[in-house]
Amino acid sequence: MTILFAAPEFDADAWRRRIAAVAGGRAIAVEGSDAYDPAAIRYALVWQPPAGLLAALPNLEAIFNLGAGVDRLMADTTLPDVPIVRVVDPNLTGRMTEWVTLQVLTHQRSALAFLARQKAHEWVEEASPAASAVRVGIMGLGELGRDAVEVLVRLGFQVAGWSRSARTVPGIETHSGAAGLDAFLARTDILVVLLPLTDETRGILNAGLFAKLARDGALGGPVLINAGRGGLQVEADILAALDAGVLKAASLDVFGTEPLPATSPLWERDDVVITPHVAAISDPSALCRGIVAQIEAHERGEELKHVVDRALGY
Amino acid sequence: MTILFAAPEFDADAWRRRIAAVAGGRAIAVEGSDAYDPAAIRYALVWQPPAGLLAALPNLEAIFNLGAGVDRLMADTTLPDVPIVRVVDPNLTGRMTEWVTLQVLTHQRSALAFLARQKAHEWVEEASPAASAVRVGIMGLGELGRDAVEVLVRLGFQVAGWSRSARTVPGIETHSGAAGLDAFLARTDILVVLLPLTDETRGILNAGLFAKLARDGALGGPVLINAGRGGLQVEADILAALDAGVLKAASLDVFGTEPLPATSPLWERDDVVITPHVAAISDPSALCRGIVAQIEAHERGEELKHVVDRALGY
Repeated sequence: MTILFAAPEFDADAWRRRIAAVAGGRAIAVEGSDAYDPAAIRYALVWQPPAGLLAALPNLEAIFNLGAGVDRLMADTTLPDVPIVRVVDPNLTGRMTEWVTLQVLTHQRSALAFLARQKAHEWVEEASPAASAVRVGIMGLGELGRDAVEVLVRLGFQVAGWSRSARTVPGIETHSGAAGLDAFLARTDILVVLLPLTDETRGILNAGLFAKLARDGALGGPVLINAGRGGLQVEADILAALDAGVLKAASLDVFGTEPLPATSPLWERDDVVITPHVAAISDPSALCRGIVAQIEAHERGEELKHVVDRALGY
Repeated sequence: MTILFAAPEFDADAWRRRIAAVAGGRAIAVEGSDAYDPAAIRYALVWQPPAGLLAALPNLEAIFNLGAGVDRLMADTTLPDVPIVRVVDPNLTGRMTEWVTLQVLTHQRSALAFLARQKAHEWVEEASPAASAVRVGIMGLGELGRDAVEVLVRLGFQVAGWSRSARTVPGIETHSGAAGLDAFLARTDILVVLLPLTDETRGILNAGLFAKLARDGALGGPVLINAGRGGLQVEADILAALDAGVLKAASLDVFGTEPLPATSPLWERDDVVITPHVAAISDPSALCRGIVAQIEAHERGEELKHVVDRALGY
């Protein structure tokens, strides 16, 4: 049996070494550079593999998706009906919480304004309300959202959450569904988006939503932080909302087109923090260890964990 | 009985309003603008008051120092022998933890490098090791240090602490005294300094100490974060260590001379984050409520909290 690695954007040699280091002698084939027998492939480690590739593997038992987002994978209409495992190790969740916490504190503590003062050699106290005076709203209360909630609550922020279906999260107020969205937005100064991309959520971050965020908050205007998926956001609406003062600032890790084209007006803005889809980048070695552990459990007849619900799309 | 406000750098009118709002009818005098009978003053709210001022108040019962640092206050050789209360409300501690967390994450997640990439419209993944691969060392395990430890541990950092005398802090390895310093520094990638300024600690952040920090860490060089007091650091040594690669970067909230002179070479460096002594700036209204609560407790015969130990200097 062979493990197939199919992630055209990744450094194949580095991944081959990492997998080999933990794979216990299992054969490894790298799509695009190794010849292999399709019938020998039992497991595929993928990130945006070529459409049709996985359908050509008759004995495939599981797909390990090397990232949280499965929307592009599921856009392959020939995708075989085997379990898709989202590779979510504790590290991935922790990585996202690091990034979300950094961005929330950056805006709450006026870090960008202080950097501008520094460039001008100016010793000036910029406004930075206490965490206890700032209302953070988390859209998406899955594993990532709930972990960020814990840290932000510990830091003293007023945290609330919103999710598609009703959820209870210890220590915070939660809202759900279309009916609960307006009340959630109306009490939110910093909106942190950790939603999956589905037909329901595509383009949800638009002018209409931004206009419903709190106008009276301690930060002097609402802040958007999106580490979910680029397809959630309407970038023209973000730019217009920043220009109109409907949004005060934004931190974006994901974009409709990635890499973000060099011509995008987002790059130039000093009220936008851009990172190149690295929020929840994992330690690849840790990922490989987790995947092989799941393969071993599967071979013992145990159930795979973190399997995508295809009907829900995440 | 009258409350005296003596903080020449602060906005006296704003503070008069805040104190009046919670002082329950007690008289308030502002040094420098109001005439008052020195014998009527029972309590003084101060920040860097004129030397000799407090000695002229025969019935003074307590001094409330509007900040954590008391070194400049105690440099007044005429200071009367009444309790000095450090104004440390939960908010002050939380504020410091916000700032420390922001700075640690800024360096761990390469936020400055990403901002530079953004200015160049470059979609490039900068190194940012997981928190679990980064060793943070906290110097100073008082109320501020212990609170920062909790949040940094929750974020997954490898945290250790150092203090003058031995202390046990749940969940972390601790070192103490001169004998324990080298081992502590040798395992530290990000050094967070929350020490008081005393004869023992003045100038402790110098070339000799920087050279003992870990050289083999995941960040590619040690980072200094000082939110203690400016007198702890030798700024010429920081500059030389940055130039020599002995330090990779620094975040400084405090300086030997404040405001930091516009001519300081620190301002220009893109490997240094400068904030103007705002790390633990409190919500002033919350401070006033806390002070009046202590005055009321004192009048009922209860002990004052957060009283400075004059022998230790903090």
